[in-house]
Amino acid sequence: MMTRTASLILSETRELTTAAHRAAVDALCPELRHIAGYHAGWWDVDGVPASPAGKAIRPAFALASARAAGADARSAVPAAIAVELTHDFSLLHDDVIDGDLTRRHQATAWTAFGTGQALLAGDALLAMAVSQLADSEQVRVLTEAVNDLCAGQSADIAFEDSDDVDIARCLTMAEEKTGALLGAACQLGAMAGGAGAASNAYRVFGRELGLAFQLVDDMLGIWGDPAVTGKPVGSDLAARKKSLPVVAALTSRTPAGAELARHYARDSGIDVGHAAELVERAGGRAWARAEATRRTASAMRALDAVSPAMPGAADLHTLASLITERNS
Amino acid sequence: MMTRTASLILSETRELTTAAHRAAVDALCPELRHIAGYHAGWWDVDGVPASPAGKAIRPAFALASARAAGADARSAVPAAIAVELTHDFSLLHDDVIDGDLTRRHQATAWTAFGTGQALLAGDALLAMAVSQLADSEQVRVLTEAVNDLCAGQSADIAFEDSDDVDIARCLTMAEEKTGALLGAACQLGAMAGGAGAASNAYRVFGRELGLAFQLVDDMLGIWGDPAVTGKPVGSDLAARKKSLPVVAALTSRTPAGAELARHYARDSGIDVGHAAELVERAGGRAWARAEATRRTASAMRALDAVSPAMPGAADLHTLASLITERNS
Repeated sequence: MMTRTASLILSETRELTTAAHRAAVDALCPELRHIAGYHAGWWDVDGVPASPAGKAIRPAFALASARAAGADARSAVPAAIAVELTHDFSLLHDDVIDGDLTRRHQATAWTAFGTGQALLAGDALLAMAVSQLADSEQVRVLTEAVNDLCAGQSADIAFEDSDDVDIARCLTMAEEKTGALLGAACQLGAMAGGAGAASNAYRVFGRELGLAFQLVDDMLGIWGDPAVTGKPVGSDLAARKKSLPVVAALTSRTPAGAELARHYARDSGIDVGHAAELVERAGGRAWARAEATRRTASAMRALDAVSPAMPGAADLHTLASLITERNS
Repeated sequence: MMTRTASLILSETRELTTAAHRAAVDALCPELRHIAGYHAGWWDVDGVPASPAGKAIRPAFALASARAAGADARSAVPAAIAVELTHDFSLLHDDVIDGDLTRRHQATAWTAFGTGQALLAGDALLAMAVSQLADSEQVRVLTEAVNDLCAGQSADIAFEDSDDVDIARCLTMAEEKTGALLGAACQLGAMAGGAGAASNAYRVFGRELGLAFQLVDDMLGIWGDPAVTGKPVGSDLAARKKSLPVVAALTSRTPAGAELARHYARDSGIDVGHAAELVERAGGRAWARAEATRRTASAMRALDAVSPAMPGAADLHTLASLITERNS
């Protein structure tokens, strides 16, 4: 039997796996995709294409193992991609944990993009790795929710440094950050209960309700009673968080919104009582309350379309009230 | 239809899910299990049992959704656990990203156990979450590898602060940290190639080889040529890393090992040239070289037992030589 050189094996591996590897990373949200591709050496910080530095050692072992088991190397491409994505996840987190500044002769992802974004890119890659091997719809639902969760948190971080956050993007962010996992909870529960295609209505129910939950959470972060919430009064405003009522106020084109923007732009401490009043005068509170009501109603419509008379549906109504009518 | 109160729904949820939730967390390595249980409010920093603070809202939605779909709540317990573990993963990482100091009225996990350990606990919980829903052997192989990977990295961090690291524990750590993923690469490739029960031999092959790889890596970290490795000479020693040759030297009961221990215990800078000589005189280098050879041989035996004459087996031999005979 002829022995193939290592460089031939590795170049064949890259030929067979590169497209699928790229496709998996392309499925991440733009910011996390950019970080994952930077980490893989596909482009530099600005997105200018570069020569990949990774050797794809682990994928080569996966493909060779498939051949050793008597099959074509192609059969193991998903396994190879899953392992390489897991390796990338691990290195991204490792560099944060060890505080390493360079990897493969370039700045580590956390030094280039910040700790939060690098961690989230790793998390999203792990979810993507698992999804390569998933042959159950349930695993796919969960990994997609994790992907959305990471995308939402990544956008949340990016918004803190951005001057032009519009309310539509902010709602998308909140839906991903808070709605995706509640949507998965409901959809997975319904699937386990045999809902089949109707399980998508439970997903919508959970996502819409999750967004309502976030709106309530944001209102409590500004106007909640510290004795009940356990957080200092106005802590979100003190931290200049761009929560939903704040973004509604900032984009309201009202004098109060403009004044709030000036307070948020300053370096000095914020008078949280005054800032809360500005959000209210700019209509941020009324909008958030109305939007929470709309989203809750939309959630209920989705649910009632598929299971109006089941005992669990009444429980879901009760739980929905619990989280949208809470004061802490 | 009688409406059940939220508190009844939530307490029923806890009754149905607590045992399975605990069992999932119990499957983590001891250090990460401790952090996950602390985060869930099951015990305090010292492991003294506490009253859980979490409301299990998401699991309640999952169970209620199963009932709304017409099934028994019990059918959705794995879905409920998967979602709760995902939520815990996300909060553990969130607290690191946001730098939050308290959660549910106690110190956040990263402030109590360090950033690295808290991140790894989150990673391990995400893998465990997915494994609740996995009905494919492949997903299970990958999530177990991730669990091992996190356990190994957690042990690695713990070792840095520990005075009594023995070589057996250090080898286990390295097998988990480096061997687990290479083992999964080979096993998953073989499974994709139709290996069936024989795929376990590929797992052993990859794990043993991964350990050999780590031993070579550790030797290069001490005696590698900076021009080839791209790392400063003796960087592992300068950072007082307890790599495998170092631990072999420290536990050698030789005068050179004792002197090395004194250098590692001091706060002042280490003369890396002298330290490398001490590791060598204490037998650390010879041991590492011999152990790498033993592990490589063990890997080859496992492989040759199942596929001696397949073309891919020759590739695996070539790849094995590539990573155990490298100089960078």
